[in-house]
Amino acid sequence: MVSAAVILSGCGHFDGSEIREAVLTLWALDEAEVNVEIFAPDMEQKNVINHRTGEIADEVRNVLIESARIARGNITPLSVLDVQKFDALFFPGGFGVAKNFSDIATHGSYCAIDPLVKRIIYETVLAKKPIGAICIAPALIVAALRDYFPITVTIGDDPEGLISKLGGKHQVATTTEIVVDTTHKIVSTSAYMRNDRITNIAIGIKKCVQKVLSFCGSPA
Amino acid sequence: MVSAAVILSGCGHFDGSEIREAVLTLWALDEAEVNVEIFAPDMEQKNVINHRTGEIADEVRNVLIESARIARGNITPLSVLDVQKFDALFFPGGFGVAKNFSDIATHGSYCAIDPLVKRIIYETVLAKKPIGAICIAPALIVAALRDYFPITVTIGDDPEGLISKLGGKHQVATTTEIVVDTTHKIVSTSAYMRNDRITNIAIGIKKCVQKVLSFCGSPA
Repeated sequence: MVSAAVILSGCGHFDGSEIREAVLTLWALDEAEVNVEIFAPDMEQKNVINHRTGEIADEVRNVLIESARIARGNITPLSVLDVQKFDALFFPGGFGVAKNFSDIATHGSYCAIDPLVKRIIYETVLAKKPIGAICIAPALIVAALRDYFPITVTIGDDPEGLISKLGGKHQVATTTEIVVDTTHKIVSTSAYMRNDRITNIAIGIKKCVQKVLSFCGSPA
Repeated sequence: MVSAAVILSGCGHFDGSEIREAVLTLWALDEAEVNVEIFAPDMEQKNVINHRTGEIADEVRNVLIESARIARGNITPLSVLDVQKFDALFFPGGFGVAKNFSDIATHGSYCAIDPLVKRIIYETVLAKKPIGAICIAPALIVAALRDYFPITVTIGDDPEGLISKLGGKHQVATTTEIVVDTTHKIVSTSAYMRNDRITNIAIGIKKCVQKVLSFCGSPA
């Protein structure tokens, strides 16, 4: 049975994982009968955003504890993740990727990546295992690997050229499309980088999951 | 174009809406090209549960603000909801239904229902419009209507006979099945009342949505 690690960054697109992307990823993996384990780092969120107003709230929340809402409690600290035990990794999007896993949200191409997250991405690519990266997560993958490999991804339109500034190559793609870096086995789809219909988000994510799974068990 | 109101009770199954049920409901409605508006009451949650440990957290959260995480900010206070403007209502499950919309979680068949929620359910049934009720939400519908109509629903197995104690009639159903009260146009599916695969949850919810939509525009 194929196994996949899904890595969450909180619960809510303004300060954590994009909830719908996370659920649609879990659904596509379950439908494909993949054995899924959900991980998140045991760290404070960068901030807490009132998702109704968009304002910063005077609260402190923990990425692992909030991610557990999406995981229904069945979640493991990211520090325990051994990439050798999984066939594939998935990163749903949301600002958690750009605020908690990195500071892309504030520093753009001058960003720093959380060392644990960076190591996990690097080890996965070194092990020739595929990664599915959704929404803004492809920028995290490109940034994590910038000193080692040039990665081709989509984050939708990328009008500001973020991916190229990070040392990667960007391909424009619609919400229902994926971009595949066959050399490094990175599959990306832009999801809620556009405010598209959830039906289209689901189509893109399902394609991303299926393409990642097609790499599983293929010759390294 | 058919329109539906989706009513959320927070963000996380232990103290609010069951996230996956809410997302899958939104997805099934969007796929059916239904015009959706999301509502939640502007009230304090009964409590905040750490979804990793199951323990009560020393925090205060608001149902409307937390529901906005699932709604991506596009949410309206429940007090504004005019049932005459919609063709159907949907209640995803989660403990928010049994803690915030009612006290079913603590008082069982002796529960009280939030007056606003009760009025909305009652007015919808009086207007001969259909309601989709997911997971524990069918118990809320039965309780809200107990003085007026006996409703037939499923909450899965109901080993303690909650629905019958509330004055309704229970039918056992699997996760992928629905139960239809044709007289009152109440369609129920048990979803995460069982810890089933998300694929099965999605099948049940999609059936529920499709059956509710089949009532829209039918003769009152």
